[in-house]
Amino acid sequence: MNLRKEFAISPTRNEDFPEWYQQVVTAAELAENSEVRGCMIIKPWGYALWERIQKELDQRIKATGHKNVYFPLFIPLEYLQREAEHVEGFAKECAVVTHHRLEKGPDGKLHPASPLTEPLVIRPTSETIIGAAFSRWIQSYRDLPLLINQWANVVRWEMRPRLFLRTTEFLWQEGHTAHATKEEAKEEALFILKLYEEFMRAFLALPVITGEKPESERFPGADNTFTLEALVQDRKAVQVGTSHFLGQNFSKANNIRFLDSQGKMEFAWTSSWGVSTRLIGTLIMAHGDDNGLVLPPTVSPIQVIILPLFKKEEEKTKVLDVVNFLAEEIKKLSFAAEPIRVEIDKREIGGGVKSWEWIKKGVPLRIEIGSQEVSSGLITVKRRDKGVKEKEQLPAHVFLEKLPQLLSEIQKAIYSRAENFLKQNTRLIDTKEEFYEFFASKDSKGNELSGGFAYAHWDGSRETEEKLKEDLKITIRCIPWDPQNTPGICPFSGRPSKGRVLFAKAY
Amino acid sequence: MNLRKEFAISPTRNEDFPEWYQQVVTAAELAENSEVRGCMIIKPWGYALWERIQKELDQRIKATGHKNVYFPLFIPLEYLQREAEHVEGFAKECAVVTHHRLEKGPDGKLHPASPLTEPLVIRPTSETIIGAAFSRWIQSYRDLPLLINQWANVVRWEMRPRLFLRTTEFLWQEGHTAHATKEEAKEEALFILKLYEEFMRAFLALPVITGEKPESERFPGADNTFTLEALVQDRKAVQVGTSHFLGQNFSKANNIRFLDSQGKMEFAWTSSWGVSTRLIGTLIMAHGDDNGLVLPPTVSPIQVIILPLFKKEEEKTKVLDVVNFLAEEIKKLSFAAEPIRVEIDKREIGGGVKSWEWIKKGVPLRIEIGSQEVSSGLITVKRRDKGVKEKEQLPAHVFLEKLPQLLSEIQKAIYSRAENFLKQNTRLIDTKEEFYEFFASKDSKGNELSGGFAYAHWDGSRETEEKLKEDLKITIRCIPWDPQNTPGICPFSGRPSKGRVLFAKAY
Ligand SMILES: [Zn+2]
Ligand SMILES: [Zn+2]
Repeated sequence: MNLRKEFAISPTRNEDFPEWYQQVVTAAELAENSEVRGCMIIKPWGYALWERIQKELDQRIKATGHKNVYFPLFIPLEYLQREAEHVEGFAKECAVVTHHRLEKGPDGKLHPASPLTEPLVIRPTSETIIGAAFSRWIQSYRDLPLLINQWANVVRWEMRPRLFLRTTEFLWQEGHTAHATKEEAKEEALFILKLYEEFMRAFLALPVITGEKPESERFPGADNTFTLEALVQDRKAVQVGTSHFLGQNFSKANNIRFLDSQGKMEFAWTSSWGVSTRLIGTLIMAHGDDNGLVLPPTVSPIQVIILPLFKKEEEKTKVLDVVNFLAEEIKKLSFAAEPIRVEIDKREIGGGVKSWEWIKKGVPLRIEIGSQEVSSGLITVKRRDKGVKEKEQLPAHVFLEKLPQLLSEIQKAIYSRAENFLKQNTRLIDTKEEFYEFFASKDSKGNELSGGFAYAHWDGSRETEEKLKEDLKITIRCIPWDPQNTPGICPFSGRPSKGRVLFAKAY
Repeated sequence: MNLRKEFAISPTRNEDFPEWYQQVVTAAELAENSEVRGCMIIKPWGYALWERIQKELDQRIKATGHKNVYFPLFIPLEYLQREAEHVEGFAKECAVVTHHRLEKGPDGKLHPASPLTEPLVIRPTSETIIGAAFSRWIQSYRDLPLLINQWANVVRWEMRPRLFLRTTEFLWQEGHTAHATKEEAKEEALFILKLYEEFMRAFLALPVITGEKPESERFPGADNTFTLEALVQDRKAVQVGTSHFLGQNFSKANNIRFLDSQGKMEFAWTSSWGVSTRLIGTLIMAHGDDNGLVLPPTVSPIQVIILPLFKKEEEKTKVLDVVNFLAEEIKKLSFAAEPIRVEIDKREIGGGVKSWEWIKKGVPLRIEIGSQEVSSGLITVKRRDKGVKEKEQLPAHVFLEKLPQLLSEIQKAIYSRAENFLKQNTRLIDTKEEFYEFFASKDSKGNELSGGFAYAHWDGSRETEEKLKEDLKITIRCIPWDPQNTPGICPFSGRPSKGRVLFAKAY
């Protein structure tokens, strides 16, 4: 017997995590690489996850007074140059449009024609073009705060692409705000960080650590970059969202000025913040198991999949009657303030094949109903967060009564598992030896392990950061908020440290 | 007294329709031109209209078994060349990416660097890149039909841009399907045409004429292009949506083949269809009046705007109490299967300014509540589809009881007005003289009028089409479905005609 066959995904997470990830993306039919290097095709199940994320986050963003808009895909090259640090950060990964026509050459093939006087850059992010509009829209303190958001595609040329995690084109939301005072703009950046954190915990079942990025990891052009960091199952960090306090840098670059209540002209203070399709990659790596995707009920496009089982034609009608009735009853129930999402898989293919498909896709609950269930009045219920063979048999009415609570239990179980994993793989470290051991450890087969999250003191120097990056491939993920974060000694340089920072290997 | 001041928009529709359109877009804060030629910035109120359209149409598309996906923004140049007619049609208006980096030149400015081996085209439409994926996804008749849709931005270089109607970048939905038989694919294209038509009538309050495009106006690469044509208030047609039966053209170009139920390899039959942000431009031109936008309640992001009026601080509390109570009661009511969308405008600016803002934005119902209303228990209600000064006073409970019906009446009134306009400006024409007069007429000031829709016989020749285009700037909008459409004589050439076709000037 091939032991591998016990699991739907080969290799398992322990055998080869990066390849496991790739296999889950394929097995759950989430996405695939296109022929355009670095660009992905998001397939129906993957896109449905993005739509769930969009819907929920959009509601939360709008509920706090932000309005959606849409700005052009193209940014004039000159705009990008206005903020010196910004252009430094993005010039290396830009797609540049230089022509606006194609023409047949002597070889019969098409070639770019009609060159543009000024090349256009495809937005890697929209601070510059939105800043130009803000300078027109904002005249007086009465126009402030200005709170907008857009859902869009952006392009950052990617040399080592990876589905969902790092793609040349990706989908995201980018918020941009302008305020009359420094305090208000900074508060906005932190307010959104909190909004993201609650969204990730409650909706994605994803515990995250929040804090501020060190200078070396700041968004180009920001005064402060705040970040949310998740820990996934190979013990690496994923930066799942960022929120930037931009000071007056983009206001000065774009001349965003307003008449304050005293009649004085002032530069506005701005913020920007975003999360992207990277969240889907994080969901996979945080919650998935050796049988594929595991979706929190809040996120799953289908929460209950019903699998009717019948061998003979005469069983079919009876089974389908029960199945249809059950689906209608389920739709009347609610979970997380939405009607429960149920589907019946009526395809006439083998029950095993069907069942495994939904396991790999991560659907929280599978229900099997065959003639046996019809005559006994019992329903067979299988939870995705438990073993594939574990099942419970319940009378239909009991199942319906329990269903919302059952989904809530699954949601909590998935969150708890992720939270325990985070706790178990987070360590306070005070010596260089322990630190190097933590990040340089290997498994029984000699594969490098990623350690996890380490809180250690840091002298604040770029030099120490660089040395650790070189030795251990780790970075400072953030300077966390923690009232107990007191000064100490940097174990790497022996110099004083203002407080512990969070180190990890990262995607 | 300046007569102009009677209307919020100057010039009026009669004075200068194109400029009126531009002024409505500005006054309703829908969109503005960006510094990137041909690309628009969609502002909050304009984007909220798009979100309403998206939500409704997305539901209708999904309810008929189509699934959303996302394909890359970039198309390899070579793909575009695979279908000969397709590339002919789009090569002239493509944005071409040739570099993926920027580098500082000796002049201190940035210049494109790192040229691509193969240039990339920004999708003008996605048949080619989706066709390439279909050829991988489709193996057997069991994989068919394949029904997908995507919401995306596309780029077609535009020399004479106009906000919403013709922009270089625009937002749209594009459906792409593959089928086992010719009949099924053609049925799909016609089914979607019907779906669009119902959506436009019921949701946009927009009557449309449907039919097939003559060969000269077909989508490049299609066997048949079906279209929906609206008539707007300057008596010009707008093509508001198209649905294409693509035959096996893209299947052959992309090698989309499947094993049929007899075990034979066959090329699939495909369709594609789309509507875009052009719908917003059409809404403005179809329903707007000299005071701005007029929105059907189904589309309007806000259906009821409440304007609290108070002069003294002591009135404020009383008025706001009533206003808040009323808003909560309204939210409990439904119209068109959704909770009624109500907002209170609490901004402390003049009541007149506020009121005019919402008139220009087209909100269906305005409610004014001041101390007088509070003490009398009566509510002042103003309908956007009626005169600005017309009002009705109703006891609060009567208003609440009538509200859903009131919205329904407004919806019907807006549709009827558009339908009457269409009828009044549609003519059956049998002589060349009458035809030329219809399209070459002028108003009292000598401005050219656009005639409207003319049903006339056509000999089927490209020559006649060209002549009419040259003489009258008109095109054949479609060959309409009409059982009473019988053969006749072409009034332009005297040759036989298979039936009447629909002529108009068009956007
Ligand atoms: Zn060549
Ligand atoms: Zn230069």
